[in-house]
Amino acid sequence: MKVKYTLLHKDKDTNARYAILDTNHGSYETPMFMSVGTQASVKMLSPLELKEINSAIILANTYHLWLRPGEDVIAHAGGLHKFMNYDGPILTDSGGFQVFSLANYKDISEEGVLFKSHLNGDKLLLTPEKSIEIQNKLDSDIAMCFDECPPYPVSYDYMKKSVERTIRWAKRCLDSHQNENQSLFGIIQGGEFQDLREYSAIETVKLPFDGFAIGGTSVGEEKEVMYKMIEDGIRYLPIDKPRYLMGVGDPLDLFEGVMRGIDMFDCVLPTRLARHGHAFTLNGKINLKNAKYKEDFSPVDENCDCYLCKNFTKAYVRHLIIASETFGQRLLSIHNIRFLIKIMENIRIAIKEDRFLEYKNEFYKNYGTKD
Amino acid sequence: MKVKYTLLHKDKDTNARYAILDTNHGSYETPMFMSVGTQASVKMLSPLELKEINSAIILANTYHLWLRPGEDVIAHAGGLHKFMNYDGPILTDSGGFQVFSLANYKDISEEGVLFKSHLNGDKLLLTPEKSIEIQNKLDSDIAMCFDECPPYPVSYDYMKKSVERTIRWAKRCLDSHQNENQSLFGIIQGGEFQDLREYSAIETVKLPFDGFAIGGTSVGEEKEVMYKMIEDGIRYLPIDKPRYLMGVGDPLDLFEGVMRGIDMFDCVLPTRLARHGHAFTLNGKINLKNAKYKEDFSPVDENCDCYLCKNFTKAYVRHLIIASETFGQRLLSIHNIRFLIKIMENIRIAIKEDRFLEYKNEFYKNYGTKD
Repeated sequence: MKVKYTLLHKDKDTNARYAILDTNHGSYETPMFMSVGTQASVKMLSPLELKEINSAIILANTYHLWLRPGEDVIAHAGGLHKFMNYDGPILTDSGGFQVFSLANYKDISEEGVLFKSHLNGDKLLLTPEKSIEIQNKLDSDIAMCFDECPPYPVSYDYMKKSVERTIRWAKRCLDSHQNENQSLFGIIQGGEFQDLREYSAIETVKLPFDGFAIGGTSVGEEKEVMYKMIEDGIRYLPIDKPRYLMGVGDPLDLFEGVMRGIDMFDCVLPTRLARHGHAFTLNGKINLKNAKYKEDFSPVDENCDCYLCKNFTKAYVRHLIIASETFGQRLLSIHNIRFLIKIMENIRIAIKEDRFLEYKNEFYKNYGTKD
Repeated sequence: MKVKYTLLHKDKDTNARYAILDTNHGSYETPMFMSVGTQASVKMLSPLELKEINSAIILANTYHLWLRPGEDVIAHAGGLHKFMNYDGPILTDSGGFQVFSLANYKDISEEGVLFKSHLNGDKLLLTPEKSIEIQNKLDSDIAMCFDECPPYPVSYDYMKKSVERTIRWAKRCLDSHQNENQSLFGIIQGGEFQDLREYSAIETVKLPFDGFAIGGTSVGEEKEVMYKMIEDGIRYLPIDKPRYLMGVGDPLDLFEGVMRGIDMFDCVLPTRLARHGHAFTLNGKINLKNAKYKEDFSPVDENCDCYLCKNFTKAYVRHLIIASETFGQRLLSIHNIRFLIKIMENIRIAIKEDRFLEYKNEFYKNYGTKD
């Protein structure tokens, strides 16, 4: 089945919305944060641990899985869910972002993107059709359109041509999409140019997508620019389809996105921070390598219900990180993802109770006061 | 309390023995395999996972914890169990082996070993008294004597002097041992020289230790030499104390040790193999990186009850290992430790049922027939 979005409550003060998203692998409340499992593994974590932290949809990456182990291996395993033994919903991104950010040579044409694999330098062509074919084989619950992700900043003229091509590619994605059991989301681009964002949104919304993503953010622009980029596109999106802000996971940005009407977020930030020894807390990010935690036998976050915070101390995690014991990174990954998921749980309750702004203000008051 | 060893059954054909070892943190059956948590973490695994694979005693390392985070940090945390949140028994080795194998400069004198830290080159002196003081502070259930671990091979004359010094050090360890709640094990050395092994055993057994270890094996000698080294020492050990063969964890060596009367084993092998993508199976070690597993959707070991084998395929683990996703190493670590622990479970049942040799023969028939 395609995903089904049922709006249950709209916040009284903002565009924040509370809904249920039905998928092939269960029904989940939105707004939600999705953990990133680029190579068919949310780095360091087991499917069991993802369940324990109330993770719903996870992401996997078409570019990476195409190169390794190959979409056919995964298809022969019975699809991505079986391959990685995850029975929750999976969203695959199109590979577009990786082709543009990881490949060290690329030649963009109407047909697609010719690039060199970051693994072995092989020349490969990724097209809208190819991306969809791979995603069909991966059999994710939600596939994403193959779009161009221009760097930031680019000229207005370049962005205009890029947006137009991305819309043509969107149509080709829809035309080649074969998997009746898989939803397909369109992506709004247009950089920071209001009229191009609007144009992209208006044209993309005309197409029969099952949901819409806002792309091209978190590429180096100012926060205020990003928030405006969301606003410029989101006002044209239908209220009965999910809206996904790609690659955004800073705690404050979750609030900013939700209040502008976003339903879904994803970001590598929580696991990447974890691998560098950083933890989210209600007072802001802390660096566990800091000497002041050497004999701090309190939990990383006293209010957190995760396995790390319920069982281990800052001093122990600090030791693990400094001694390069990967169990420390694993514990912090659990915590950091749980932290964002918990924010979303609280946000959902706040929306339902018409006090989203109150919760947002309370969160902002504490956040960033530490380290 | 000190550990208490209660012999329950001796095998009819061999010196294999089945017993119960009471510790401060529970009672456990022997023979047992102990997982290694060098830096207060069994690499990649949580205490919960250790419980799930029926892990009993784990090891931690005095040398590493002395350097990082420091024994006082751990003492202030309330001891090693609290620091790492492990409520099973912990054995600490003395740091001797690491000082001799890791430090790149060392000067051995009657007092102890002057060496340079492998982390920062600091000159440090480890003595019997210092090793015991650190272990007292770590508050492990079982502490080990500080001994000299000569390389292999060394001359008879060197080994003779070394054994004599190790016995003097053993007395100093006993004299300085302060922790009434901690057992202390002596260590038999003597290399491959039968009379020195015997001398070491006879002299060490005169001292009031709570258990005895056989050291100096697995340092490059032939298997047959190692087995003889065990035999030369073990015949002098009292039957009412546990016997620990240090640093040995090859599946076949577990059988060889058990049949010669060993009760406890430890080795980094299962986790080290895991980090290199290797798995134990009943047919021998397999290398998951092997191309033939690319589309092998069967479990790593069909007879295994571990989280890996119950939930994931060879193809998936292969992908994780090749893509450098540490979840793969984690899954293989769980499996490889579980594999050795399961062997010990089977060995204990076999001893109780007087069919140890039968089980050993059955195991040997299959093992090594693969890859």
